[in-house]
Amino acid sequence: MLAELLAALGPAGCLTGDRVAEAARSDASRSGQTLPLALLRPSSVAEVSAALEICHRHGQPVVPQGGMTGLAGGANPRSDDVALSLARFAGVEEIDPDAGTMLLRAGTVLERAQEVAAEAGFLLPIDLGARGSCQIGGNIATNAGGLRVIRHGMTRDNLLGIEAVLADGRVVSSLGRMVKNNTGYDLRHLFCGSEGSLGVITRAVIRLRPLPEARQTALCALSSYRAVLTLLDMARKTLTVSAFEAMWQDYFAFNQQIARLSLFANPPPFAVILEAEGAGLEPLLEQAFEAGVIDDALVAQSQTDARRFWEVREGHAMETALPGLINLDISLPVARLDDFAQACRAGLRARFPDAHVSFYGHVGDSNLHVAVALADNAEDGGHEVDRIAYDLVRGFGGSISAEHGIGTLKRDWLGHSRSPVELAVMRQIKAALDPKGILNPGKLLPA
Amino acid sequence: MLAELLAALGPAGCLTGDRVAEAARSDASRSGQTLPLALLRPSSVAEVSAALEICHRHGQPVVPQGGMTGLAGGANPRSDDVALSLARFAGVEEIDPDAGTMLLRAGTVLERAQEVAAEAGFLLPIDLGARGSCQIGGNIATNAGGLRVIRHGMTRDNLLGIEAVLADGRVVSSLGRMVKNNTGYDLRHLFCGSEGSLGVITRAVIRLRPLPEARQTALCALSSYRAVLTLLDMARKTLTVSAFEAMWQDYFAFNQQIARLSLFANPPPFAVILEAEGAGLEPLLEQAFEAGVIDDALVAQSQTDARRFWEVREGHAMETALPGLINLDISLPVARLDDFAQACRAGLRARFPDAHVSFYGHVGDSNLHVAVALADNAEDGGHEVDRIAYDLVRGFGGSISAEHGIGTLKRDWLGHSRSPVELAVMRQIKAALDPKGILNPGKLLPA
Repeated sequence: MLAELLAALGPAGCLTGDRVAEAARSDASRSGQTLPLALLRPSSVAEVSAALEICHRHGQPVVPQGGMTGLAGGANPRSDDVALSLARFAGVEEIDPDAGTMLLRAGTVLERAQEVAAEAGFLLPIDLGARGSCQIGGNIATNAGGLRVIRHGMTRDNLLGIEAVLADGRVVSSLGRMVKNNTGYDLRHLFCGSEGSLGVITRAVIRLRPLPEARQTALCALSSYRAVLTLLDMARKTLTVSAFEAMWQDYFAFNQQIARLSLFANPPPFAVILEAEGAGLEPLLEQAFEAGVIDDALVAQSQTDARRFWEVREGHAMETALPGLINLDISLPVARLDDFAQACRAGLRARFPDAHVSFYGHVGDSNLHVAVALADNAEDGGHEVDRIAYDLVRGFGGSISAEHGIGTLKRDWLGHSRSPVELAVMRQIKAALDPKGILNPGKLLPA
Repeated sequence: MLAELLAALGPAGCLTGDRVAEAARSDASRSGQTLPLALLRPSSVAEVSAALEICHRHGQPVVPQGGMTGLAGGANPRSDDVALSLARFAGVEEIDPDAGTMLLRAGTVLERAQEVAAEAGFLLPIDLGARGSCQIGGNIATNAGGLRVIRHGMTRDNLLGIEAVLADGRVVSSLGRMVKNNTGYDLRHLFCGSEGSLGVITRAVIRLRPLPEARQTALCALSSYRAVLTLLDMARKTLTVSAFEAMWQDYFAFNQQIARLSLFANPPPFAVILEAEGAGLEPLLEQAFEAGVIDDALVAQSQTDARRFWEVREGHAMETALPGLINLDISLPVARLDDFAQACRAGLRARFPDAHVSFYGHVGDSNLHVAVALADNAEDGGHEVDRIAYDLVRGFGGSISAEHGIGTLKRDWLGHSRSPVELAVMRQIKAALDPKGILNPGKLLPA
């Protein structure tokens, strides 16, 4: 089989032994330990197709890999897997300025695609912290979320067309450029978010947007979660909201301190970063202050000011300050986020009295993150944290993964968010499109 | 089998013979001639499930029916089909004002759902001319387009959760309320647009939006299609565009005349209705006029003015004036719409020298309509029109159905817009979820 792959892809397209890069071991979760049997680097759709046809014939499992920035272990190989990287199939093929669309190859690094869009006078509306190394194919395969969801939706909401190679090597091309296209089953949304288990995405058409007007940013202090929801409602009605990020007191206080900032000397029960495109932020804040919705607000007068607000929100220093930090990514009906936070804090504290527990999230997108650091590295502590939190998520009708996906790390909890019938339907679809089960086996769907 | 259905659904839920309403014969395309074997009217998800379990066991084909306002024949039964109407399973079950979501039953008439949303202070962002009789289940099953697509997207773009009954009676419930939910395959988008061929939609969660600011409407005269595209680009960059409807000269002149209006005494090469929410329309028009993009513009000073613009665009009097009117619904990359119109006009005129041929459409959504009336009712004339137009659509990389769907009327043309591999994948999915092929057989997928 390796000889066939080598013949089909050439020496630069089929690496084995020492030539397999260390980076092929693991995504950014650092949960992968193993090098794959081979690392395939096809440079065309035809080569992706040829590689899959060969692997399919031999029953060889294939793990598609993008920029390896995922957080769920979805691209980590096992020792007898073949990894398939799209890195050599990169670049923007076409921009249609009238339609506002971009056709690009799966291996294109997101930031590069953003730059090409900006040069043509457009915003590429997908953006995330990993933009400098993640690839658009991986963004689509995981339906990446990120920083612009409240304004422009998830990756799938900006996807007009897709091309993928099926397990048996057939190329299924649905590279439509039209917003309206009611001609049968929507294959875009089937491959988007399927984490490489239904096909290898090779190209896509993305919808571009006009470049945004200047953004204004404020940091608001609020005394209740009800006030947070009221501010969100007010903002949605009058502003073009481009971020609405809430920090619970525990998170804000901790991160303000380690960042050595004093934005609110007395950390309020809730701190919200409200960012809007165009005008209207300050009048809205005045109105919210007069109505008693916010207790205080800092309006950024410069990029530096805004960066300070975001520094506390992003909390990059947390991982150093709290070794072994666990970061959960869940979503819940927005009205229940604080009820969940209270129940989750209580549940975790009951089991781990000395743990750090704090909450923050993209509240405008119903997305909550939970930061947990256990005082002692108790064996199975992480599993216990998952169990406590995900049992609550299930009770609240939420989702165990808002944006990071399932991969291997959440695979065994999937039944907390999807019913047995949903799982059965997913398995029926998987079996229909990949009957030999060679595409990313062991990921996403529990055994 | 009918005895079993009667026992499961009761006499009000299982109608046969004379008790089957005439309306069960055909959707609004008037292409259906036949009454079904029985008309099922379940009043709960459990009854839908029971009915499908019985039909599945007997290998009985089932045609799901909503408000029968479709235009592709997708809900028309054959004489040995059982029709299944959701009309008795109607109503809004829940509005979450914090999340801006509505949980409702499939049989809810769209207009009723819009009213309930408005009473709660929200816009239900799905709207179409048939609002008074279409049902939300049908809107989802056909991924309805309509009047708000440029602002809020197609039905699928406003769909957060879905519940459907599978062919064998299993209920698959994905009624999430969260914008972010990355937990495996997206079943919403699989059922949405599948035209009743994969499951019977029973409930859904729709995302609501803030009520819009007042709309301003203008009718603009332009002398080239390039100018139309430039105006669209300018409008998108500075306005919240809620409609951008272009009429080619042939369409505008004909409909202005039969409406006995004189909006532009000399019909321009292109007339565009531009509608925007909030402020900014008049400054934009001034700027466009100074830049030579528009030659003239009428700004509606009242609802009556705006209605006159829309009367010409909607062309309701056309069907009376042109008996046997054919209305094609296609989409193409927006830059190519006029190239297509010219080629299509030439192709149709070559075959039918005396035909009426005119063009209009939701240009902002890449959606073009072609109105054709043949002078003589030549046998197979409709088929010839389809062939000439859809052959061109294929050549332009367009879609043979922008918003109306496939049903039976476009089924045999589906291969003009979807590749053999795409069709094979659709059939694999269909076979996986409905192995006996009982759900809406003969629709959507060509034999």
